[in-house]
Amino acid sequence: MTNKQIILKNRPQGTPNSATWQLEKNSIPELQEGEILIQQHYISLDPAMRGWMNDTKSYIPPVALDSVMRAGSIGKVIQNKNNPNFQIGDCVSGWGGVQQFVISNGEGCFKVDEKIAPMPAFLSTLGMPGMTAYFGILEVAKIKDGDIVLVSAAAGAVGSIVGQIAKIKGCTVIGIAGGKEKCDYIINELGFDGAIDYKSENIYTALKRKCPKGVDVYFDNVGGVILDAALSKLRMHATVVICGAISQYNNKKKINGPSNYLSLLVTRSTMKGMVVMDYTKDFGKAARQMTIWMQEGKLKSREDIYQGIENFQETYHRLFSGEKNGKLILKVLE
Amino acid sequence: MTNKQIILKNRPQGTPNSATWQLEKNSIPELQEGEILIQQHYISLDPAMRGWMNDTKSYIPPVALDSVMRAGSIGKVIQNKNNPNFQIGDCVSGWGGVQQFVISNGEGCFKVDEKIAPMPAFLSTLGMPGMTAYFGILEVAKIKDGDIVLVSAAAGAVGSIVGQIAKIKGCTVIGIAGGKEKCDYIINELGFDGAIDYKSENIYTALKRKCPKGVDVYFDNVGGVILDAALSKLRMHATVVICGAISQYNNKKKINGPSNYLSLLVTRSTMKGMVVMDYTKDFGKAARQMTIWMQEGKLKSREDIYQGIENFQETYHRLFSGEKNGKLILKVLE
Repeated sequence: MTNKQIILKNRPQGTPNSATWQLEKNSIPELQEGEILIQQHYISLDPAMRGWMNDTKSYIPPVALDSVMRAGSIGKVIQNKNNPNFQIGDCVSGWGGVQQFVISNGEGCFKVDEKIAPMPAFLSTLGMPGMTAYFGILEVAKIKDGDIVLVSAAAGAVGSIVGQIAKIKGCTVIGIAGGKEKCDYIINELGFDGAIDYKSENIYTALKRKCPKGVDVYFDNVGGVILDAALSKLRMHATVVICGAISQYNNKKKINGPSNYLSLLVTRSTMKGMVVMDYTKDFGKAARQMTIWMQEGKLKSREDIYQGIENFQETYHRLFSGEKNGKLILKVLE
Repeated sequence: MTNKQIILKNRPQGTPNSATWQLEKNSIPELQEGEILIQQHYISLDPAMRGWMNDTKSYIPPVALDSVMRAGSIGKVIQNKNNPNFQIGDCVSGWGGVQQFVISNGEGCFKVDEKIAPMPAFLSTLGMPGMTAYFGILEVAKIKDGDIVLVSAAAGAVGSIVGQIAKIKGCTVIGIAGGKEKCDYIINELGFDGAIDYKSENIYTALKRKCPKGVDVYFDNVGGVILDAALSKLRMHATVVICGAISQYNNKKKINGPSNYLSLLVTRSTMKGMVVMDYTKDFGKAARQMTIWMQEGKLKSREDIYQGIENFQETYHRLFSGEKNGKLILKVLE
């Protein structure tokens, strides 16, 4: 058995290229006492991966050069050397990285129940993106019934869940997405109240039309021009959640800061950063609630699943080009 | 009796110039029933004045063209046409504007007691700058004993009070100011723990040396490069108070947004805007506390008082050049 692994070879400047990663085929070492071998089925592709490759201070250490590229993943236990917490056949999710097999002592591996949902859902609504949305909109933004909520990357893994939870909680929800298909999706399939296609409309003009009263909450996944425009529409005592800044991750120079940040002063508003890992102890509770909403038909997700670890780099680029429909996942099981 | 008034004639682009204001000498109308005539002694000069001249959405309407330039002020009642709330000789503070006399129905005029402090103190520690500092550091930043507090424009009207209150509350306080004299002042006279002279030191290098553990609270009066540098030093769950952005007020193009704003995400921090008017109902309580601290010698202020309404424009520019020592005040009483 060989393990195909994506190895980080060079730290990218700007957009990753063919020198960034290398596909290696390595043998799998013998298990040590207490270890399990997981055959990975699916890898989660997330915008945060770009930041993990930078050698700068952040919320987690950068991926080391010459090591397996970090990624969330899900797979099945296929060998077990006396680890009492796992059985052969257990379905487990964790930080397995971009590889086909991973050896673990079980730390950071969570058993999941395939009867609740298919495997990819545990990397999507019931995984990090879903948890980010859940805690971001409920615990950080603290939305209230009647709030006007604006969310960017609204057809994406996090934004689509943010908007749906806000709808469940009685908010008016406007989503910003790229292209007609995504805008139609969030309105017709997810029940958003409005959509702005930032690729075809001037964002300031569109916000004036779609959010004439301004917004109480802006959930930002993108940064850049859209963050600036959203800041110009804050109502009094509004909250801006800084969850990500996908428009800025590949900047070679410094990030474009929000030049409209003084809107925080004018409207007495608050801008808060969040990292989903802070809520780990409550993931179980959140997953149970999200499962109920899914079963009730109130919460939908879609996963866009590509095939083959060889296609990792090409698939990764879809995160930034937007050429995907829903949560981006790579199937690495052959 | 003539009333010398500074009239806003043109909205400035960038820095105000000789076309911005005009000195006019006008007669004083007869009082109507219920009105009082106040002879103004002192006018408060504040960086916020720059924003009030822009015709853009803000926390108060812009000063109308051809009307008296807005300013906080203090003076004495010299005529009263049957207003039961005031006596001839009362010392009153309010928004009298840049003029020598003002007619009022009493709304927005607060009687102050000269026995507590000399008149200029009511435009300084016991006026808007003091109130801004008090509510900003206590209610917005919510400092705790042991916090590391960084404040910019630290020798200025707001910053000097922010730092002293933080010291009273048991914080470690580092101030950023321009020039050796101001830095010496905040350490030797006000008891700050450290000072950074942004005119002679690289702000990033200096912060690394003066705040090696980072900061729990950054109180920002300046924006621009200093805000960016401060964001790079946030500790976990820090708070950034956006009180002003004096470095950006005269920008002709768009404001420089803080390119390090993603530090809010990395450190799970919060950036909050504030406007002092929101705390008006508690000004009395704050003033009583500040008076006690002043009497105990824990809270010092200094006012830099210039003479003559004719010198308004020249004095105003000191706000932005930094050529002043303490709260900038113009005496308009002849």
